[in-house]
Amino acid sequence: MKTTPAVGATLFAMAALWAPATPAPAQAPKPPAPNALMQIVPVSPNLEPAIPRPAQEQAAREKLAALEKRTGRKPNILVFLVDDLGYGDVGVYGGGVSVGSPTPHIDALARGGLRLTSTYSQPTCTPTRAAINTGRLPVRSGLTRPILTGDPIKKNPWADEVTAAKLLSDNGYRTAVVGKWHLGEAEGMKPVDVGYDEFFGFFMVVSEYSAYMDRRRYPELVTKPDRVKAFRSTGAIEDIVETRKGQPMKKVRPLETVDDIANCDQDFANYSADFIRRAAQDKTPFYLIHAFSKVHFDNWPAKGYQGKSPAGTPYRDAVVEVDDIVGRIMQTLKDTGQLENTLVFFTSDNGPNEDTCPDCAYTPFRRGKGTTWEGGVRVPGIAYWPGMIQAGRESDGLFDLLDLFNTSLAVGGIADKIPTDRYIDGIDQSAFLLADTGESKRQTVYMWVEYDFTALRFHEFKTHSKVLNVHNTFNDLSEATTERTGMAPWVYNLYSDPKEQLSRSTSQFEWVLIYLGKEGLRHAATFEKYPMKDIGLRKQ
Amino acid sequence: MKTTPAVGATLFAMAALWAPATPAPAQAPKPPAPNALMQIVPVSPNLEPAIPRPAQEQAAREKLAALEKRTGRKPNILVFLVDDLGYGDVGVYGGGVSVGSPTPHIDALARGGLRLTSTYSQPTCTPTRAAINTGRLPVRSGLTRPILTGDPIKKNPWADEVTAAKLLSDNGYRTAVVGKWHLGEAEGMKPVDVGYDEFFGFFMVVSEYSAYMDRRRYPELVTKPDRVKAFRSTGAIEDIVETRKGQPMKKVRPLETVDDIANCDQDFANYSADFIRRAAQDKTPFYLIHAFSKVHFDNWPAKGYQGKSPAGTPYRDAVVEVDDIVGRIMQTLKDTGQLENTLVFFTSDNGPNEDTCPDCAYTPFRRGKGTTWEGGVRVPGIAYWPGMIQAGRESDGLFDLLDLFNTSLAVGGIADKIPTDRYIDGIDQSAFLLADTGESKRQTVYMWVEYDFTALRFHEFKTHSKVLNVHNTFNDLSEATTERTGMAPWVYNLYSDPKEQLSRSTSQFEWVLIYLGKEGLRHAATFEKYPMKDIGLRKQ
Repeated sequence: MKTTPAVGATLFAMAALWAPATPAPAQAPKPPAPNALMQIVPVSPNLEPAIPRPAQEQAAREKLAALEKRTGRKPNILVFLVDDLGYGDVGVYGGGVSVGSPTPHIDALARGGLRLTSTYSQPTCTPTRAAINTGRLPVRSGLTRPILTGDPIKKNPWADEVTAAKLLSDNGYRTAVVGKWHLGEAEGMKPVDVGYDEFFGFFMVVSEYSAYMDRRRYPELVTKPDRVKAFRSTGAIEDIVETRKGQPMKKVRPLETVDDIANCDQDFANYSADFIRRAAQDKTPFYLIHAFSKVHFDNWPAKGYQGKSPAGTPYRDAVVEVDDIVGRIMQTLKDTGQLENTLVFFTSDNGPNEDTCPDCAYTPFRRGKGTTWEGGVRVPGIAYWPGMIQAGRESDGLFDLLDLFNTSLAVGGIADKIPTDRYIDGIDQSAFLLADTGESKRQTVYMWVEYDFTALRFHEFKTHSKVLNVHNTFNDLSEATTERTGMAPWVYNLYSDPKEQLSRSTSQFEWVLIYLGKEGLRHAATFEKYPMKDIGLRKQ
Repeated sequence: MKTTPAVGATLFAMAALWAPATPAPAQAPKPPAPNALMQIVPVSPNLEPAIPRPAQEQAAREKLAALEKRTGRKPNILVFLVDDLGYGDVGVYGGGVSVGSPTPHIDALARGGLRLTSTYSQPTCTPTRAAINTGRLPVRSGLTRPILTGDPIKKNPWADEVTAAKLLSDNGYRTAVVGKWHLGEAEGMKPVDVGYDEFFGFFMVVSEYSAYMDRRRYPELVTKPDRVKAFRSTGAIEDIVETRKGQPMKKVRPLETVDDIANCDQDFANYSADFIRRAAQDKTPFYLIHAFSKVHFDNWPAKGYQGKSPAGTPYRDAVVEVDDIVGRIMQTLKDTGQLENTLVFFTSDNGPNEDTCPDCAYTPFRRGKGTTWEGGVRVPGIAYWPGMIQAGRESDGLFDLLDLFNTSLAVGGIADKIPTDRYIDGIDQSAFLLADTGESKRQTVYMWVEYDFTALRFHEFKTHSKVLNVHNTFNDLSEATTERTGMAPWVYNLYSDPKEQLSRSTSQFEWVLIYLGKEGLRHAATFEKYPMKDIGLRKQ
């Protein structure tokens, strides 16, 4: 594992500023005396410390055991991962009819399950997918930003990573990722190379394929055939492909026209439905990540979807299509009798891409994709499992999409297979989801932008130690003053100030900074034994 | 009726810029040919034109008739009017647990009824209350801004206004307003002077009473007895009072300590519960506006509420108290058998007062109270009526709190008693609320800040013809660039851009401006026969 010697300078600077000047311990630090704010205890040197919740662990264990006794097998895991969907787009998160794109099927999952209001992704697509797959912060896996075709990747990041899919596949699960991969298209980086039994979809991001198709949107490229030719020679695999473990990759159909792209998500939905039917027939538990291509730009309506949303715009029509597909796949689960044997988790890989506005994703929070303002990383998080997760639950407990790694393994009964030779930043949150009065085991969410540690959330508090500006549509309007400095890291109480408008770091939250410093030091210490990785994406 | 000769200059300027240069008709203008955007037709010269929806009108009429046949009387009307509550504070509008103050009782109303996502108030407190009571824009009633003790009111605005309470009281209803009045404390301006049978509460705003009590918050005043004495001599009635029609005003208890103020809403709740019980016993239909004192600053926790919210802050504790009271009063309705005979409407009088941040109200929208950005005027709007309003409905149809006037009269069976000698800006939305597939009859919401016409919403479009800056906590951060100019009024598509961040008035919405001009002209024309009123609050 390639390592880098030092952790982001800002993290240490912050810790040094705000914590007692003791050297960071090489091992997991001794926890402070338990109190209402510092509740975590170490679990193992390579695992993120967690808040102990023995009663709910017990309740969840009993539920899982009873289910297995009834069904005779392990439960399925289905993750709906939408691309660039905003927290606010979903009806139960404040969007839906109010933004001209009702989401009745997604809303039904929330009303029939657990609606999490503090679920965190990474600030961009590839890092979030890496986090879900590995349970490790992107800075440890090396997948710190979206990969572009031809990116100078010097080392296969997957060579020394272990995915949840691999562990589950090795232990009786049928595993698949369907739709967008975006974690590498080179040898050794494809889904079946890293542990999936099946893949159906494309490797990169839709906008890489669509850029040479739409004359209105990309006239500088599309109207010049020599440019299109040059662009297409970059080596991207411009097809929907299908691969099963041990078999050669099969090209399903090319992506050559607007219609080809418009209908991708319909194909993905058909494949996932078929996958579920096959698994049900074989009585094999499955682990399926259904990774939509939509609602990342460019959003062309699939057949029948143009103008289907009340808003009638391409983005809003795409949201309606995504919601319909969620409904269809849920219906397949029901039709195959798998509804009560499947943990369903619905989320997005990051906040709105504000560069595509207007007609873009909606978040009530500040800023969007690429930043660690809440708008960039706070995403919908819905856990649904009739009979196992009580309907109508809501929680503001912290959930990091990293936690899906540990949680999936726990639900699959192989929590003991979590690797011990690397740091796992995820936490097993299965009991949070399953126990009727379950609470989060996570105390802190650490936020990085590539190799910069930028922010953390601790209970309801959020601090920014470094603010990186993303240039986009809104810069001139709202972010003229972003690059401010201050006497201390900015601190917000997200209950009082969800939009992160008014930092009160010293006058009101100096006492919080003491804790934040402790958390910073603890996080920094994890990098001493378990360092960062650079696969060639780190700016020198 | 005192009048002013000309309508706000910006309204005409806008209309002149963007509509055909024909003179404004003196009467209600001839409607344009019906199409998907211009759907309204004139109803009567003095009534705001509305979208005809005959099928739903019929459905609503039948429902009301069937109910009256069953109960033998007219239904009750109960309006919960919270002070300065943000759109986002309520769980089903994106707040609740996510901002540290769950609102289960209010959420239950929404889930069991109709959740409106485009309900509009006036930008401040007094104007909204005036609008609900009269069905007329504040610029017509003269109640254009919050009244302060000692304000130079030259003319009683109520001398020539008619309230819904008066009309209902004259037609068999028992009417009351409980809590905050804030529509005048002088002779002829009190609730029983303008048509209410009962009033229990105080006349002004809580902060006028609390300013001389909290040493920590108002040291400049509280620590100097001579200043307190001077302040208290301004003439404010510093008591909770009770009045019934034809009886002298009774002082219930003084407002002298923090505790006195902290417990106000508990007293109000007790009174409203008693009022409901009395009405039920007498088999008299009632019209009750329960006007909370909270969550306007200063928010002191009532007994038992300190730290009761997960956030633990005064504002959030106050939200929890308001929610509890909603639950208690709903329980009284149930206990008295009135649940199925009462239209309940829950709302707020305006958006967050950003001057009180942090620990203030939350809106996902831009800016707050005092402005006609969405944050200032878009409020929760929930209609609940088991058996009459289908559970789980959601609509983005436009609803102006002005419409409560007409709607209350329609539900009370006296739509024919609406005055004909003045312009009524409200629209009867009873069928929108009651029909299972009801849609809004309102096409446009007109927004004024005192005597300035500033903005309008038309379908999903919002335009600002004049932007007035409100100085508050956030000015330096986000509004440095507010006073922009442009080639045209700013236009936003609120489906694509709910936060009003990126105007595209000419490049994308020039076609919309054509319609907005028409709507501007039509609105301007109403002021020719039915002019504005100035009671002394208009700046010269």
